[in-house]
Amino acid sequence: MKLFHLLLASLLLPLSLHAQKPCQELGDPHPADAASWRRVSAPCLGWGSIDQRYPKTAVPQLNPTIRLSAWKGERVNAQALLVTPKPLSRVYVEASSLRSGKGVISSAQVKIYYVRYVMADGWLDIHGHSNHHRADKSQFDSSLVADPLLPAQPMDVEGQTVRPIWLDIKIPASAPAGKYQGTLRVNADGRVLTVPYTVSVSKRTLPEPAQWKFHLDLWQNPYAVARYYGVPLWSEEHFRLMRPLMEQYAAAGGKVITTSIIQHPWNSQTEDPFESMIGKTLTLDGHWQYDYSVFDKWVSFMMSCGVKGQIDCYTILPWHLRFDYYDARTNCTLSRHLKPGTADYEAFLLPFLKDFAAHLKQKGWFDRTCIAMDERPMDILTPAHQLLRKADPDFKIEGAFNYFPKDVSDLHDISVAYEYDLLDGASVRQRTSQGRPVTFYTCCGPQRPNTFLFSPPAESAYMGWHAAASGYSGYLRWAYNSWPQDPLRDARFRTWPAGDCFLVYPGGSSIRWMRLVQGIQDYEKIAILRDQLKGRKLQKLNQTVSKFRTNKFTVDNDAGRMVREAEQVMRSLE
Amino acid sequence: MKLFHLLLASLLLPLSLHAQKPCQELGDPHPADAASWRRVSAPCLGWGSIDQRYPKTAVPQLNPTIRLSAWKGERVNAQALLVTPKPLSRVYVEASSLRSGKGVISSAQVKIYYVRYVMADGWLDIHGHSNHHRADKSQFDSSLVADPLLPAQPMDVEGQTVRPIWLDIKIPASAPAGKYQGTLRVNADGRVLTVPYTVSVSKRTLPEPAQWKFHLDLWQNPYAVARYYGVPLWSEEHFRLMRPLMEQYAAAGGKVITTSIIQHPWNSQTEDPFESMIGKTLTLDGHWQYDYSVFDKWVSFMMSCGVKGQIDCYTILPWHLRFDYYDARTNCTLSRHLKPGTADYEAFLLPFLKDFAAHLKQKGWFDRTCIAMDERPMDILTPAHQLLRKADPDFKIEGAFNYFPKDVSDLHDISVAYEYDLLDGASVRQRTSQGRPVTFYTCCGPQRPNTFLFSPPAESAYMGWHAAASGYSGYLRWAYNSWPQDPLRDARFRTWPAGDCFLVYPGGSSIRWMRLVQGIQDYEKIAILRDQLKGRKLQKLNQTVSKFRTNKFTVDNDAGRMVREAEQVMRSLE
Repeated sequence: MKLFHLLLASLLLPLSLHAQKPCQELGDPHPADAASWRRVSAPCLGWGSIDQRYPKTAVPQLNPTIRLSAWKGERVNAQALLVTPKPLSRVYVEASSLRSGKGVISSAQVKIYYVRYVMADGWLDIHGHSNHHRADKSQFDSSLVADPLLPAQPMDVEGQTVRPIWLDIKIPASAPAGKYQGTLRVNADGRVLTVPYTVSVSKRTLPEPAQWKFHLDLWQNPYAVARYYGVPLWSEEHFRLMRPLMEQYAAAGGKVITTSIIQHPWNSQTEDPFESMIGKTLTLDGHWQYDYSVFDKWVSFMMSCGVKGQIDCYTILPWHLRFDYYDARTNCTLSRHLKPGTADYEAFLLPFLKDFAAHLKQKGWFDRTCIAMDERPMDILTPAHQLLRKADPDFKIEGAFNYFPKDVSDLHDISVAYEYDLLDGASVRQRTSQGRPVTFYTCCGPQRPNTFLFSPPAESAYMGWHAAASGYSGYLRWAYNSWPQDPLRDARFRTWPAGDCFLVYPGGSSIRWMRLVQGIQDYEKIAILRDQLKGRKLQKLNQTVSKFRTNKFTVDNDAGRMVREAEQVMRSLE
Repeated sequence: MKLFHLLLASLLLPLSLHAQKPCQELGDPHPADAASWRRVSAPCLGWGSIDQRYPKTAVPQLNPTIRLSAWKGERVNAQALLVTPKPLSRVYVEASSLRSGKGVISSAQVKIYYVRYVMADGWLDIHGHSNHHRADKSQFDSSLVADPLLPAQPMDVEGQTVRPIWLDIKIPASAPAGKYQGTLRVNADGRVLTVPYTVSVSKRTLPEPAQWKFHLDLWQNPYAVARYYGVPLWSEEHFRLMRPLMEQYAAAGGKVITTSIIQHPWNSQTEDPFESMIGKTLTLDGHWQYDYSVFDKWVSFMMSCGVKGQIDCYTILPWHLRFDYYDARTNCTLSRHLKPGTADYEAFLLPFLKDFAAHLKQKGWFDRTCIAMDERPMDILTPAHQLLRKADPDFKIEGAFNYFPKDVSDLHDISVAYEYDLLDGASVRQRTSQGRPVTFYTCCGPQRPNTFLFSPPAESAYMGWHAAASGYSGYLRWAYNSWPQDPLRDARFRTWPAGDCFLVYPGGSSIRWMRLVQGIQDYEKIAILRDQLKGRKLQKLNQTVSKFRTNKFTVDNDAGRMVREAEQVMRSLE
């Protein structure tokens, strides 16, 4: 009965307006002194730094030009600033093609975004962690933060404001090495402002993201997308809206598909809880039936977006230990509290896991699938692992640890919290050489480095350098897009620091995202250079990378300084 | 996966001990003066009245014999009392066969029950209704009440107590008229006590219950049975346990099968809420699927028990207006608040009702099915009726009213609260002559007549007489067996007066039940006599019956006196 869904969709229509046009930004709770605008007589355009978030109402310093460096196949970013004392209507931004003596990089390779301003909170150190229970927003200083990146459409710009413009330039692998010249042009109220820039393209080539080794594991939330846009879950429209979002993840080298095999694996901690992608029905005659329709549809879709490495299934160890199923006797969903190691736990999960293993094998997915369990104590992990082995001895396991586990030999993929050094270098090398990923993760902690809205942008790039320094396969974050209610206006959430739940925004990405991608590219470049460099150059590279092994930040911009210096060293060694 | 159910069942095993042996009765909060027992030197046996509840600890008056009257085919009751100053072990009761000059009635026709004692509360008049919110039991005077009837098994009897014994004698239709002599014999500690009694069997014959015209509509709760006995819902064991219970309903002329077509049609008001007997699934591609397995199984079972008249389906107008369905997208049950008359209400219910009508027709049940709506206001009844007609113009509707509705022409079966005279006699006659039932109902009110544990037993018989007097087709009660947690020990419930939720007990019936059946038999006898009597006798009968048209009770035993007098008049007219 399609009518019902149409009605549902129509009820939700007002929400879907989010998708139609960028919403009005909230007012700045800490506007800069309007007097400083007296020295700005006319709109002007210039360059800023990609590692700086420019306040909306403070007059910034501008650079007349900027020089970027890139490998062939690499993406590089730049941030320009349109500064205007008076309102401008229908501001339109264009990039020229880039030209060197030998070659041309088409303007189509230059993606232009407006940086937008969103409300954020800050870090508050309560008993060593700042993380939970932010329902009372008054505890935290609100600030309007430059973070979301939305594709630049003609827009009005308020007077006495800064509108940052973000460039994301993808150097074609076929581009000849050389120094390219380009221009950024802003059309505003009949006036044209231009600024030049250069990109030095090196002889080296970065492979396409699908070839990247970095194990990027960002948990995708399809439920948030359906709710945000007000479209029926798993409808064609839903998949259509998810495609650019998930292709963006794949374009950053995203390797892992996040699936929820039970309802609310994380106890509904996000604005949009993860429902079960697998239906479990206890029939009238007491048999189990499993429905993999959603799971199959979602996994196939993610693969079609380019995410093909691994399928992580959350979970057989939810924090609440509650397991739902549809009971055909009562025609409703029942929920049971089942403790690992008990006969009830086994009676519920064993038939499911056996059936699931058979289904995965039939799809040809079994070898890339992990049953995932995050931040659970060893006393329940052990019986859960035993049960998995009983269901199928070849089931792979993923585990994330925020403590030092006694024995992780059983796990295929492990992720360790940034704050912990759980494995020595030799163990990490041993695992990764066997193709078993070891990643690190940040979540609501540590304070630095992290990817909050108030984190210095370079801390996102730091993730790639830290992974390279520690020999890790990559990085895990628990939330790629678990958006709060209205993320493009207010990034704060009832729990955790702003931005903890998402790295990208509806219809776009973020400064954090772009810097994270740069760090991943750096990781790939380091690996290539380590293969190709020798002697003193290799030693110098390794020295530079090793600084990222451990670092306790004390000053906000340490990460930015470190990353910029390291990138400079790397360029000097090419 | 049967194992899961076995485990479930084993978890519930302690509960199922209820079924194994009668539980210990609770202590009497108002024991009689022990001194009165001084005059009882030895156990004795005698007759009491079926219209009296004998306190467990007070010495009663005994009659040496009793004379009963019955039609052929009728069931008649008697209450004997075993009175003992000292404990008796393994007391065993037997009835002789009944003999007259011409015939014998086998002892197998005499069913013997022990009357048991159960805790009850009372009526409390708060703002005109006494009904709700009894969680604080201290507001109500508790008393140990003689009500449940359990088949007499050898049992120990405490000293200084009364143990009433209930006889339910079914006169075979083939028994010759005459005066039959019988004996009740009690074996106690090697001593044998006997009391004689007579049954005068008239020449008239009462047909078998299946032929009775009385429209008995008592709502059955299969969910209570599964929970009480700790057996899986709709399992063979569950049906086995329900069979005697539901055959008992059929043997009283039960006409209506209660079905729940949505989850919790009465907002979980009973200890065991009614789940949906029909599964509704919204598939991934937005189509509806309906599962009638439980509905079909339950209806077929009830028919096999002898209840074949009508199938009442609750409801499309639940009090909470919440409608559940299984959503294959989220793999969980979702709940929607849908208001009658809205497009959403129609979008949800119309496809279901169409499909349901087709299913009922395919089963051959459509013509006997009513969609039932109880105590709902007219402004939502009207759009609900319109929707039903849109789904199928021939859908029958049942409605219960606790107010005066403007127009009930649309309804097939109506039930009116005892307190209201909603239809004049002509309208009632018109409807019933067309085969459209008109019943009355009592529930948590009125105070009298009713079938609470503290109601005089004859008030149950009063129901048949009131129906006869008003020209009604029969009687409706909202609860045949919506048992509280432990009904054989404590009949009180968190809401409503004790006994409001059930008329019979697990494994047996009740004094209230037996008297209700007698009233129904009286109704049938009145109808037969009205057909057969003429002149002054008919006039006398009608005069007697008409006293039950309306009656505001002020004295507890008015009902008993009225019923006994009327029954005597009826006997005199045969």
